Amino acid sequence: MADADRIRHTIARYPTLLAGDDKDAWLQLFADDATAEDPVGTPLRTGRGQIGGLWDLIHGLGGDTELVITNDPKVCGHEAAFGLQVRAMMGDTRMAMDIIDVMTFDDEARITSLRTYFEPATMAPLDDAGP
Amino acid sequence: MADADRIRHTIARYPTLLAGDDKDAWLQLFADDATAEDPVGTPLRTGRGQIGGLWDLIHGLGGDTELVITNDPKVCGHEAAFGLQVRAMMGDTRMAMDIIDVMTFDDEARITSLRTYFEPATMAPLDDAGP
Repeated sequence: MADADRIRHTIARYPTLLAGDDKDAWLQLFADDATAEDPVGTPLRTGRGQIGGLWDLIHGLGGDTELVITNDPKVCGHEAAFGLQVRAMMGDTRMAMDIIDVMTFDDEARITSLRTYFEPATMAPLDDAGP
Repeated sequence: MADADRIRHTIARYPTLLAGDDKDAWLQLFADDATAEDPVGTPLRTGRGQIGGLWDLIHGLGGDTELVITNDPKVCGHEAAFGLQVRAMMGDTRMAMDIIDVMTFDDEARITSLRTYFEPATMAPLDDAGP
């Protein structure tokens, strides 16, 4: 089993790489046969080819998109849950939406499954006071 | 499928009843054959008899225990994830620990499964500034 610190390292890199310019570096956080259900209830994506579609979605939100961890990872064995916030410009307004991610990991702390909980209707102008 | 508002209502009652004095009222939030893995990685509890042990654990923390939702529920179909904080007096100090709960629900918005992510080592004195 990957140790908790390695899992925390993968999680720390996840939002940074997802908002960055290197799609392949982000995809390398996933195991070869990883699955993603984002959001929960939508069809399962299997493998880096399908999971790469999530990177495309985020990058389709427009410029200056940020992903910020707002609820520290809780690592339980080879699983973890954490909260993050996606922030993106929509017109002239900086919008934000809270998300909870649940992940499982392999022995190398690569993501083997991702399940993402959010409600699109909760997207709202970012309070300057922060999360 | 239970609608999102009924699921939100169950979640809102969950921490209040868990910290309260009516164990049976809390257990009635669960379906007959519900399961609980609290925390994730520990043996599965099945049915209200075994799940009642969780209520006993919380009430064994001592007086004045609170459970406060600190990360609003994200409802996706018949599932939801949310953050909460358990706060309890330990000696003379009010301690707090962050938790992420993931639940599934039946058509009556009763909990059919509970999976709880937390790290006991993160228990720390409650910052008076709040979560």
